[in-house]
Amino acid sequence: MTENEKGISQAVIGRLPRYFRYLGELKEEGVERISSQDLSELMKVTASQIRQDFNNFGGFGQQGYGYNVEYLYKEIGKILGLDRTHNFVIVGSGNLGRALGNYLNFEKRGFLLKGMFDQNPELIGSTVRGVTVMPMEKLESFVRENNIEIAVLTLPKTSAVKVADILAASGIKAIWNFAHVDLNIPDHIQVENVHLSDSLMKLSYNLTRNCKERED
Amino acid sequence: MTENEKGISQAVIGRLPRYFRYLGELKEEGVERISSQDLSELMKVTASQIRQDFNNFGGFGQQGYGYNVEYLYKEIGKILGLDRTHNFVIVGSGNLGRALGNYLNFEKRGFLLKGMFDQNPELIGSTVRGVTVMPMEKLESFVRENNIEIAVLTLPKTSAVKVADILAASGIKAIWNFAHVDLNIPDHIQVENVHLSDSLMKLSYNLTRNCKERED
Repeated sequence: MTENEKGISQAVIGRLPRYFRYLGELKEEGVERISSQDLSELMKVTASQIRQDFNNFGGFGQQGYGYNVEYLYKEIGKILGLDRTHNFVIVGSGNLGRALGNYLNFEKRGFLLKGMFDQNPELIGSTVRGVTVMPMEKLESFVRENNIEIAVLTLPKTSAVKVADILAASGIKAIWNFAHVDLNIPDHIQVENVHLSDSLMKLSYNLTRNCKERED
Repeated sequence: MTENEKGISQAVIGRLPRYFRYLGELKEEGVERISSQDLSELMKVTASQIRQDFNNFGGFGQQGYGYNVEYLYKEIGKILGLDRTHNFVIVGSGNLGRALGNYLNFEKRGFLLKGMFDQNPELIGSTVRGVTVMPMEKLESFVRENNIEIAVLTLPKTSAVKVADILAASGIKAIWNFAHVDLNIPDHIQVENVHLSDSLMKLSYNLTRNCKERED
């Protein structure tokens, strides 16, 4: 990590996956170079924002000549930690857990599903892409013994808090939290929340305001 | 809508659902009043941020005496458009679509599942909570004839772009987009993106940086 990379804002980091996605598409289309102006029009952000964002990581090459798509894709991938694999488990094997377990794109990016867990006896023993659902009692030792970095929490909020404590004790490094609750765990564990209800309510707000504005 | 409510930043709006969630929990616990200081400690944001956020909507009552939890919960609910129902359809009835269709909390908040759609003949005719999966050909007329406000897109990105155009033509008001692509549709349609891969990559970034920092 360069000195520059320390203290980069979460807003910038939040935009990196989108750059990565667009660059991946350009690469697939055979585009070799792109100017910040063209990338700006494609992604609907200002060229100056793109340059500012990239400057956090050293700039990625000359502006006048444009960016090398493949190089930029690879470099952003490295920054995002996609140049190596990450083992993960899914805790909560209901509909959402199974949906995420079946999502092949995660594997393509190096996220390897190693285990699934649930407390429901009807789900234990069933499989998702060849991975068997195990009882919750096995979670702590499984994480400890299988070099699991990430746990995906797709559980009701009441059990999520308890399970997060178990995961913290087992040495997990990151939690991708879909439970509708903010977790209270040690700071060295990275947490990324996906609160689906919050997102739906935000949509509802914008929908409601938009309709009212049009009525005015 | 008061004059004040115009031009409220998406950052503020993005925080409203979280206030709503915490206030709902306080209400369930029987708490009647809460100071911005106590709410601040609970939610781990500054009291000044809370006051600033609330001032966008007129402030919600005296600071010294604390906020009335039930009143605040109800008012924020109204702002979020949760004081009325919203009909929605799910387009793409695979694992993720079914997971969202089964999520009862949405109904509790007034979001009513009216239809599900897919192009896979094996899924057409199956049901989710009593709602039958219909073929895609019926989508446009169904949205038009059933006062559908929101469409949830849980489709591969290749079909999502085409379906978004159909939805735009059918008069949809909002799209909750889970497809891994940015939609290009008229501005009067509200779009809220949930790009799960982007969220996972952000987690991966923070995980990777954190590990490197600890190695330093």
